[in-house]
Amino acid sequence: MNRASNPDFARAVRASFDSQGLMATLGARLVSVEPGRVVIELPFSQSVSQQHGLFHGGVIGAIADNSGGYAALSLMPAGSEVLTIEYKINFMKPARGQLVRATGQVVRAGKSVTVIRAEVACIDDGAVAECALMQATMMRVDRR
Amino acid sequence: MNRASNPDFARAVRASFDSQGLMATLGARLVSVEPGRVVIELPFSQSVSQQHGLFHGGVIGAIADNSGGYAALSLMPAGSEVLTIEYKINFMKPARGQLVRATGQVVRAGKSVTVIRAEVACIDDGAVAECALMQATMMRVDRR
Amino acid sequence: MNRASNPDFARAVRASFDSQGLMATLGARLVSVEPGRVVIELPFSQSVSQQHGLFHGGVIGAIADNSGGYAALSLMPAGSEVLTIEYKINFMKPARGQLVRATGQVVRAGKSVTVIRAEVACIDDGAVAECALMQATMMRVDRR
Amino acid sequence: MNRASNPDFARAVRASFDSQGLMATLGARLVSVEPGRVVIELPFSQSVSQQHGLFHGGVIGAIADNSGGYAALSLMPAGSEVLTIEYKINFMKPARGQLVRATGQVVRAGKSVTVIRAEVACIDDGAVAECALMQATMMRVDRR
Repeated sequence: MNRASNPDFARAVRASFDSQGLMATLGARLVSVEPGRVVIELPFSQSVSQQHGLFHGGVIGAIADNSGGYAALSLMPAGSEVLTIEYKINFMKPARGQLVRATGQVVRAGKSVTVIRAEVACIDDGAVAECALMQATMMRVDRR
Repeated sequence: MNRASNPDFARAVRASFDSQGLMATLGARLVSVEPGRVVIELPFSQSVSQQHGLFHGGVIGAIADNSGGYAALSLMPAGSEVLTIEYKINFMKPARGQLVRATGQVVRAGKSVTVIRAEVACIDDGAVAECALMQATMMRVDRR
Repeated sequence: MNRASNPDFARAVRASFDSQGLMATLGARLVSVEPGRVVIELPFSQSVSQQHGLFHGGVIGAIADNSGGYAALSLMPAGSEVLTIEYKINFMKPARGQLVRATGQVVRAGKSVTVIRAEVACIDDGAVAECALMQATMMRVDRR
Repeated sequence: MNRASNPDFARAVRASFDSQGLMATLGARLVSVEPGRVVIELPFSQSVSQQHGLFHGGVIGAIADNSGGYAALSLMPAGSEVLTIEYKINFMKPARGQLVRATGQVVRAGKSVTVIRAEVACIDDGAVAECALMQATMMRVDRR
């Protein structure tokens, strides 16, 4: 549905993702980059837990934000960078399982402002449950 | 201004904070717990960075969420736990500096639903700048 | 996909809608009520305009909120009422046209808290454009 | 605290407010315009009610959005217009009373993006209660 104007969009997304110290700290993996749609996964470990041994909401927010930001970046012209202006996230279920998967998708790509939605699923012994939902506003800026 | 109904509110907050694996992973510290107001600080390190070497927004979201959630918990009766229903955060400035400080405050404490606001400041060579603002909804549940 | 536990869900929604003075003031119409999905339409008039003669964002917010709240109510047991805890809305395009249509859908229905999404389309000379997107949190309460 | 760069900021705000059909429809009044801070009031009438005869949340959202948008506009250079990119609002109490008052304030004014906060109070027989809280993102555009 979406068309990338930057033929190197996937490389631009991967390069940015790989330069984020936090993603390595958390153990997040960029598993799919398509025009307007990016998937990030994160396996569970004690180091990303909250007080009940589930995934911490802040971790879910971080990968959802990234999945949406990179979905936005994938549709921007070469030489662009993406900033998160703001995001809003609902936690719909306890984030229990071995893996969380955030799928960010562009809802509306404007010249400077892009609106995204990100859905976060928890995978627990093979069962997949939607556990969080984000709506966010991204902004294009020129790479310095 | 606020009164805690649980005389052990500070201990309840600290115990919950200390059992979060993520806070240790990120290097976050609980620096102040008053009724309805909690402060969390996080020093910069490469392990919490985004692609430009600044604090990652997800990290800022995580400590802001916690500061607000624990501010809410501090006013709840003994035996309570707090869940984040949802939060919304604006990133107002590049999060540059040696330290970020999230101050969560209760705006309205209801029986089951509490609304909080969290302000995040970046401290860069002594200069303090408000870099993010959160508004969130917390829910009280009975401890299992 | 969704099943209504209240056989009279459509009547409950219509009765509540009809008792809202604001919907009559704005000229809004409840055009469809299915389990977990409600559609509200509003024709343009000068009385719902902003400074450029387009639909006012507050009007769009009001019908989106209602479409989502009533989608939530449609899945609640008889004797329930619905309260909006909070909503977040992005305005994605100038709201130009003869009609706006808000479609509210339940994303996750919990016992007390329901998360909804509402999409708002502007219909301009037959062309349909998605012009706003809402994500919101609703709460069930017992009818007094 | 804030300084207006446009000496005619108050006139610009009033002119825009007066050209909104919706504000007249609802009976809203612009009661104060200072640099970075705007107050709007709305008396109760059946025509702005929800199903229990209280103020409709959509009305509260509309005047809060306007108070924040005009607070943002008051700090912008002459020839600017303001667009609401998105807002998020929490309803904290039943909106009961004879009057609601929305006070919008600029939190951070950037070149193109401004973050605002709006507090909505309900005045009921002289008692003032904070009943809603908004956090929103506004954007400057050149007047056409």
